[in-house]
Amino acid sequence: MSSDIEIAQAATLRPIHDIAQRLGLAPTDLHVYGQHMAKLTQATVNHLHSQPSRAKLILVTAINPTPAGEGKTTTTVGLTDALNLAGYQALACLREPSLGPVFGMKGGATGGGYAQVVPMENINLHFTGDFHAISAANNLLAALVDNHIYHGNALQFDQVSWRRCMDMNDRALRRITINQPTSYDTGFDITVASEVMAIFCLATDLADLTRRLGRVQVGVSQQGKPILASDLQAEGAMTALLKDAFQPNLVQTLEGSPALLHGGPFANIAHGCNSLVATQTALRLADYVVTEAGFGADLGAEKFMDIKCRQSGLRPDMAVVVATVRALKYHGGVEVADLNSENLPALAVGIDNLKKHVDNMRQHFGLPVLVALNHFTQDTEAEVAQLRAAVESWGSSLHVCKHWAEGGKGALELAHAVAALAQQPANPTLLYEDHLSLPEKLTVIAQSLYGADGVTLSELAQKQLLDMAGASDGLPVCVAKTQYSLSSDAKLRNVPQNHTLHVRELRLSRGAGFVVAICGDIMTMPGLPKQPASGRIAVDDSGRILGLS
Amino acid sequence: MSSDIEIAQAATLRPIHDIAQRLGLAPTDLHVYGQHMAKLTQATVNHLHSQPSRAKLILVTAINPTPAGEGKTTTTVGLTDALNLAGYQALACLREPSLGPVFGMKGGATGGGYAQVVPMENINLHFTGDFHAISAANNLLAALVDNHIYHGNALQFDQVSWRRCMDMNDRALRRITINQPTSYDTGFDITVASEVMAIFCLATDLADLTRRLGRVQVGVSQQGKPILASDLQAEGAMTALLKDAFQPNLVQTLEGSPALLHGGPFANIAHGCNSLVATQTALRLADYVVTEAGFGADLGAEKFMDIKCRQSGLRPDMAVVVATVRALKYHGGVEVADLNSENLPALAVGIDNLKKHVDNMRQHFGLPVLVALNHFTQDTEAEVAQLRAAVESWGSSLHVCKHWAEGGKGALELAHAVAALAQQPANPTLLYEDHLSLPEKLTVIAQSLYGADGVTLSELAQKQLLDMAGASDGLPVCVAKTQYSLSSDAKLRNVPQNHTLHVRELRLSRGAGFVVAICGDIMTMPGLPKQPASGRIAVDDSGRILGLS
Repeated sequence: MSSDIEIAQAATLRPIHDIAQRLGLAPTDLHVYGQHMAKLTQATVNHLHSQPSRAKLILVTAINPTPAGEGKTTTTVGLTDALNLAGYQALACLREPSLGPVFGMKGGATGGGYAQVVPMENINLHFTGDFHAISAANNLLAALVDNHIYHGNALQFDQVSWRRCMDMNDRALRRITINQPTSYDTGFDITVASEVMAIFCLATDLADLTRRLGRVQVGVSQQGKPILASDLQAEGAMTALLKDAFQPNLVQTLEGSPALLHGGPFANIAHGCNSLVATQTALRLADYVVTEAGFGADLGAEKFMDIKCRQSGLRPDMAVVVATVRALKYHGGVEVADLNSENLPALAVGIDNLKKHVDNMRQHFGLPVLVALNHFTQDTEAEVAQLRAAVESWGSSLHVCKHWAEGGKGALELAHAVAALAQQPANPTLLYEDHLSLPEKLTVIAQSLYGADGVTLSELAQKQLLDMAGASDGLPVCVAKTQYSLSSDAKLRNVPQNHTLHVRELRLSRGAGFVVAICGDIMTMPGLPKQPASGRIAVDDSGRILGLS
Repeated sequence: MSSDIEIAQAATLRPIHDIAQRLGLAPTDLHVYGQHMAKLTQATVNHLHSQPSRAKLILVTAINPTPAGEGKTTTTVGLTDALNLAGYQALACLREPSLGPVFGMKGGATGGGYAQVVPMENINLHFTGDFHAISAANNLLAALVDNHIYHGNALQFDQVSWRRCMDMNDRALRRITINQPTSYDTGFDITVASEVMAIFCLATDLADLTRRLGRVQVGVSQQGKPILASDLQAEGAMTALLKDAFQPNLVQTLEGSPALLHGGPFANIAHGCNSLVATQTALRLADYVVTEAGFGADLGAEKFMDIKCRQSGLRPDMAVVVATVRALKYHGGVEVADLNSENLPALAVGIDNLKKHVDNMRQHFGLPVLVALNHFTQDTEAEVAQLRAAVESWGSSLHVCKHWAEGGKGALELAHAVAALAQQPANPTLLYEDHLSLPEKLTVIAQSLYGADGVTLSELAQKQLLDMAGASDGLPVCVAKTQYSLSSDAKLRNVPQNHTLHVRELRLSRGAGFVVAICGDIMTMPGLPKQPASGRIAVDDSGRILGLS
């Protein structure tokens, strides 16, 4: 089998104008970046948004990720290809990858095997520059804050809370001390965890983008009053920096299905969904929009519902929960080295992780659910049969998918099942009501979705809760915690019992319209591993990139 | 008169394919970014570089800049337009603007009035993302260094000299303390001052780019040995990040002349010229290539000759020195508020600054020189006559240019004079020989070009000189000093006497192949002014950017 980059580089891509034509878009609707990438123009986006939504919205989510790999992005791509192959008109709606993980452990985020979005190298590196624009807007605001203090501090900053950001896994920037104009401790977050990224992904249009940027809180005055970006006249220039980036990006899958890739907050430390603008655009361009929420359903899907859908009024028609036999065996206690062997007892245990996520999506969000089994060649017939029996015993159905090896035709069964289920009436609901207090909202999430006994707040978080009293009323919470566990402890697999969600820190994101609750030891700036992936990346004499994964 | 952005936004731009066609390029030679911007593909660049250079190369430089404005970029654009209008085939070759000054005092860098390159807003903001790519490559290397130390420090770093960079005027990042893995002081430079930017602009091709990136020195080991980027296997991934950016950008002037914009090191704190790749490409695409070196001839032109030309073998055919009556009166002692009044005695004094630069270009670099007088409406006939008489008394000629108000037809006289002079045989020379010591090279520059008595080195610089002994042999020097004076003191106008060049710090740029000598109080990270330009920038409801200058 070839590597992902070899498959991607061997593919013959269609001109992006042909992909646009499948969506009924003309060349004038596009701002192209070479032959194979484009942004939809703002005029086209505005025009589409004035029309009614016509698509069914399918949310692809997953069990808790493991070192074995689950394949949520490949399933989103494979399902889209399969729907198109089956004669439905489908469009994938995904996040853009962050540069940081490309040089770290995880690699890129464009799918894999024969279920990829392309051009893979461009998308995984700078793509159309959106994340650089977001970093620049974020860091312009930081420069304006410190510059304001340097030139006399007329706003009487007592404390600066705004942090800089960089689209890089740079552990050393987590905590830095700035020495000028006054010495204080601050740091960088990875761009995908920044509030500007969240705002970018939640704003309805350019005017809303500007409004939200203006109400970003950057610090507190000596009188204890919040100081906002608008106090520094920053929001206009920030919008100017984001204006082009704000237009959704159109690319294609290896099979020529259209895909909108736009925005990319991480789902562990941010809210985890592609931009609202892209989703709203997609819903006017196809009959089926397949979208993905990052990591497991406890993180991505919850925030998709309770943040993105809550703020926008959007509702999905159904959910697909992705699992692999290997990952479920891992949740059942098997170590990575032993995952290639059949192990029915371990699978029987690990199935509980899948059941919890399926239950959550159905009971707490009111969504019809299918299970997509992302098939590996080592999976035995007995394992698949055991899993299928379990899923069917819950009243759901299991669909074996081989899109990684076969492309869309490997996910045809799933596609037909999805197309049928999406037509059923659904009654999607949100997990908690706006009027609850922040601790009450956290408690609902922790108890009902994570299976936790309750929630504790650190002293710092308790102080921060008091500080944001009033300002945080009615806002949803964005939980930042490990993706590897239903709990906030990355080591606890499957469905942990007797655990408490400990909130270390609360950050008010006035512009994004949520409160970030940082739980456990999750970091808003990742680090690189001992052997970073960067060491394998090179450019050959013909200008071809090697070693990207 | 309309503002620059109003003129730019009112213009009807030609499709970039039409601009390319003027250069004999086909659509397949381009990687387009929308309708009006493109990169030349690497294959096209490689093909062109295999052909002989056919163009005359005209270097546009200037007197020392003043708050009155000189108009070097407008003259480069206006001269290119005028040459094309006169029936010559001309191409402008310029630097890309940095984002930092756009939000600070200076504003953008795309020319002004009717002598601009467009699309102005795109070029001044993210353009095709080149500077973001350079920042990312620089900062990946920094992350790899600290990550290496965190994971055990096998290379035994004793000292980290590599700094991070950001394309922003962010004073507070000049000196920061990093707290993890070990606490040490470091900082950010503006991207246009980074060694990666210099390497990007001096590399002959992708392979040379990788080689140079690999030999970047990032620190010193406990054994006192230099540690290079290649010791961290960083150069392949850095090249992957820079690969697309490395292709020159094609845009147009308001009159449809082609312009290559590529790379953009500042000329005060870096070497100040657009990329070598763009210049070499341009020389195969037109009969006249008009290029600009940043700030005054003491900085930009010197480094153009002694760094870019020395390393590449390139030689210009002639130089145009740009001056304004207002700026010369300022050098003659007139304050900004009084520049609108005729002042022949002050002009007679300030003319010395122009004479020094003209002499330098002729005597020390062996270049034929013309003087372009960038005309302002307040200039009196008597002032122009006095200036003309002076210039002619030195054996040169003066050409009054009104391209700012009139476009190319305002610079026709200059164009004809340039076309004639460029045909004359020239004998360009470099200022100093490779084998001189670093202090000797600095002394030649300071004495012959700046009119200084000599050079002093701080204790730090003396220690650094010893540390880089051997490694710096044969390398040219890149002087970082104020642009406002021939001396290193920004307050000393005209032709300062009795001054000494004081070198505060030396930085070895192994990859770029030069030693940076930081003189006086020049900063490699600028700050924002009290009223940053960002406060005036906004996006209106139609998505149009306002207030950019």
